[in-house]
Amino acid sequence: MTDAWWSQPCPSPDVAAAQSAHARQGVLTKPPGSLGMLEDIAVWYAARQGSERPRVERVWISVFAADHGVAAEGVSAFPQAVTGEMVRNFIGGGAAISVLARAVGAALDVVHLGTVNDPGAIAGVHRAVIAPSTANFCDDAAMTSAQVAAAMQVGAERVALALDADADLFIGGEMGIANTTAATALACALLEESPDALAGAGTGLDDAGIAHKRAVVRRALSRHADAIDTLERLRRLGGFEIAALAGAYIAAAQARIPVLVDGFIATVAALVAVRLNAGVRDWLLFAHRSHERGHARVLAALDARPLLDLGMRLGEASGAAMAVPLLRMACALHRDMATFEQAGVSQA
Amino acid sequence: MTDAWWSQPCPSPDVAAAQSAHARQGVLTKPPGSLGMLEDIAVWYAARQGSERPRVERVWISVFAADHGVAAEGVSAFPQAVTGEMVRNFIGGGAAISVLARAVGAALDVVHLGTVNDPGAIAGVHRAVIAPSTANFCDDAAMTSAQVAAAMQVGAERVALALDADADLFIGGEMGIANTTAATALACALLEESPDALAGAGTGLDDAGIAHKRAVVRRALSRHADAIDTLERLRRLGGFEIAALAGAYIAAAQARIPVLVDGFIATVAALVAVRLNAGVRDWLLFAHRSHERGHARVLAALDARPLLDLGMRLGEASGAAMAVPLLRMACALHRDMATFEQAGVSQA
Repeated sequence: MTDAWWSQPCPSPDVAAAQSAHARQGVLTKPPGSLGMLEDIAVWYAARQGSERPRVERVWISVFAADHGVAAEGVSAFPQAVTGEMVRNFIGGGAAISVLARAVGAALDVVHLGTVNDPGAIAGVHRAVIAPSTANFCDDAAMTSAQVAAAMQVGAERVALALDADADLFIGGEMGIANTTAATALACALLEESPDALAGAGTGLDDAGIAHKRAVVRRALSRHADAIDTLERLRRLGGFEIAALAGAYIAAAQARIPVLVDGFIATVAALVAVRLNAGVRDWLLFAHRSHERGHARVLAALDARPLLDLGMRLGEASGAAMAVPLLRMACALHRDMATFEQAGVSQA
Repeated sequence: MTDAWWSQPCPSPDVAAAQSAHARQGVLTKPPGSLGMLEDIAVWYAARQGSERPRVERVWISVFAADHGVAAEGVSAFPQAVTGEMVRNFIGGGAAISVLARAVGAALDVVHLGTVNDPGAIAGVHRAVIAPSTANFCDDAAMTSAQVAAAMQVGAERVALALDADADLFIGGEMGIANTTAATALACALLEESPDALAGAGTGLDDAGIAHKRAVVRRALSRHADAIDTLERLRRLGGFEIAALAGAYIAAAQARIPVLVDGFIATVAALVAVRLNAGVRDWLLFAHRSHERGHARVLAALDARPLLDLGMRLGEASGAAMAVPLLRMACALHRDMATFEQAGVSQA
């Protein structure tokens, strides 16, 4: 599989642009370093856009919805019908990400990868149904090889649209009842961690529910202990939307589009992407630290320092959307502040 | 002094509006609690605006600039001339807060309370000069009683303008070479902490500089150990901009305008305001955790959980401006998301 598209190299950031941006930060009218992470973001973005003065204007958000066979194990606080119902809500404007995409002026691309409660064709929703659901990975592999490749391909195709739209930033979101269970199983396998360390409340399990979820993940890990390759682990334990996110992150990095990673599930997909193609890491920013238990561990595995910590645990790309103004304001400060010389201000 | 304007009561938040907003959060299409602090903000704002669905549209930022006599002790990395120079930069559009106020569409009110390097009358700058500088509080009280009252009054007058402009949010910022030294001395006095615990690098002191700053604060605390009243501590150890901020916070709370508190110096001013008038606390939100050493301790004294932690340490209201989009998006989610019933989505 080394000749697969997702193994193709990602471009390197532009070191000269980063150096130039770093020098500019040193002469703007503020004590050097006093804007903290905002300075780092501006320099990071300069290297990705190959420009001393980067911009984050056009933001593209793709939200991938898909159902999970493991929902049959009773691992979610919500009924499985919600996945299909939320597809309609995303495009109808009433979901959190619908509101936030409007607030930040982002394009919102809703992608339906397959739900048990199929809402059918909906104007504005991209229908790319792979199957009504993955298989229950307690019994079987979640996906066939063809399905995982198809899901990754859908992710890449959405990035191609983002590229056509001249997006300065790609954000991926997800919706799928039981998908924190899939993400937890996948993270446990990739990080060789126990379900006790990573399994959390998801959309709102109580302690008994979390204990059950841990047991389910433990069974799945035992069932698939022979899978040691990243792609095979994704196929056995992942989901259509997780594979689509991983494919999208790889394609975005290959296309020089910076990525803002959302919460727990998206970060597990990012871990898959980086394991499949190490060069992807250079193109990832991390939006927030989710309240979901396993997120901190997965962030640490990616050496990621997220921008926000607001106790959010919704998914849908909602945490990433919240961080968009921070990126824009970091670049605006970098671009529009006066230098000491321009403003006639004395230096230290 | 109990009949002073700043002792007059602050209105109570509207409990019924908060309950109504809290109930609404429970039926929006998301797992209850999954928006974390964003839900808390919406409910908090509902109680302050007396409306189930609050809005944060019009934002007013007043930045108060003033010089400090203690600068003579060599406690800043920057020359004192910078305070006056930055007044021109604020209104000229090149300072960080100038860029950020434009980015969030806020009114930016620049208030000149007195600088050693006086820039003179500048179009757009409100000139309210009290003196070129406070006195060096190592030798004397920083301010006379008339000066501290005048500075607090200027803060209140700026809030009156914000009220005339129908502001949904008041933000105060500050600029003044050596003002982390004044804020540290004041915080040490109010919290009975040692300068070792609270004194930090300010705009960029090295270890020797911080040690010197601690010694200066220690001398000041020893000189003014007999001052035990909050107003008297403010007079002896504060500064014009710190007094103006404290006055502004009190006036905003009295006028039902929510306040978003900036970094270390602003938070010390907020502590003064709350000590002078406990009802002010109900009207304060806290924008960010500054990199400045003493900030965490002062936040803890106010039981404050700030929204952002980006390593910023600039002042000028810059951290507060960064948090404005978070408040707006929290209210937009609360106002514009669909309920389960409206969207036809199943509940847990």
